[in-house]
Amino acid sequence: MINITEKDIQQYDKHYRTHLINSLTGFKSVALIGTVNQEGDTNLAIFSQIVHVGANPPLIGVLFRPHTVVRHSLENILSVQHFTINHIPASHAQNAHHTSARWEGSEFEACGFSPEYSQIIKAPYVKESNVQLGCEFVERQNIQANGTVFIVGEIKEIRLVDSVLKEDGFVDLETAGSITCSGLDSYHTTNRIGRYAYAKPGEKPKEL
Amino acid sequence: MINITEKDIQQYDKHYRTHLINSLTGFKSVALIGTVNQEGDTNLAIFSQIVHVGANPPLIGVLFRPHTVVRHSLENILSVQHFTINHIPASHAQNAHHTSARWEGSEFEACGFSPEYSQIIKAPYVKESNVQLGCEFVERQNIQANGTVFIVGEIKEIRLVDSVLKEDGFVDLETAGSITCSGLDSYHTTNRIGRYAYAKPGEKPKEL
Repeated sequence: MINITEKDIQQYDKHYRTHLINSLTGFKSVALIGTVNQEGDTNLAIFSQIVHVGANPPLIGVLFRPHTVVRHSLENILSVQHFTINHIPASHAQNAHHTSARWEGSEFEACGFSPEYSQIIKAPYVKESNVQLGCEFVERQNIQANGTVFIVGEIKEIRLVDSVLKEDGFVDLETAGSITCSGLDSYHTTNRIGRYAYAKPGEKPKEL
Repeated sequence: MINITEKDIQQYDKHYRTHLINSLTGFKSVALIGTVNQEGDTNLAIFSQIVHVGANPPLIGVLFRPHTVVRHSLENILSVQHFTINHIPASHAQNAHHTSARWEGSEFEACGFSPEYSQIIKAPYVKESNVQLGCEFVERQNIQANGTVFIVGEIKEIRLVDSVLKEDGFVDLETAGSITCSGLDSYHTTNRIGRYAYAKPGEKPKEL
């Protein structure tokens, strides 16, 4: 085993530490967040700090880096109150990574994605995505420890490609082609190990 | 495309809605959180609401369900101030799922995991895990929208199986055998699509 202490972490150079610590959360939820400002300029950015907050009401959380420089996605959400979360199909991993560059104009055209709108959500969806969520801003929590901003949104609309929604409500993300990521720059497809029944003490959970 | 509106979501039965909404964040970070109470009773529970908060200082966040009933993991963290986050190897997916049952005693023995201790962290690590993080409580944020509790911990110790740590600090989670999950009960291994260089406008990010 490799044993890394607090002192080691402090002494690493910035890039090494950033790669290391970003790897430790495990495989992450990764998606493209679509927003628009009051002037109608669209923005698209890749995020991997996305977390399930609750099912009823349907809430989802996104952690944003400190709001000390211009953060278009965060500013657009706070201003327009709507945003979209769009899963990334494996075919578009490289394009999605490219949205993290410092683009002058919209990342949609620059990175090969097509904006699409619904009647309900003001922010643009990503047409190429097979799982699209339309969200409304609900709550902001400022993390004191490092100035990051936790935004909670309520899911107001769900747009799914056909055949991924199962009888019990489970969405088959492998059929949808959604990817996961690790660290700062690594993208992955998945293979199902299994689905397991609701766990009870004393008996191994059955495979569904 | 399947289009699900706010009204549809409200009208679904509870189990259907829970499966659906839990699927929408995409593939999730999943790990076993090890804690201990003041009496020395250990607890082990599976969590998929884990998020990277920052690299310097090294911070990690975990979202806990509302603190309205007994939540051993949360109570132990608040009391002892230490917890461990342990990646799940593919061989132990079913065992890890089993920790979600309502056990009377410790989930370690009941579910086939071995506690292991270091000099630095009071909470037990999971010996079977190839990526183990020792964390200290830093901050608690209560989410107003639904009573969930966001806990931020600082990573004080990292224990990694040999050969997973790369030259640039990236941890190869596929070599570590760490899994991801989706929905409430589905577990997955991964296959790398690629690692991409730091993205710049105008040129496609190179594969590393």
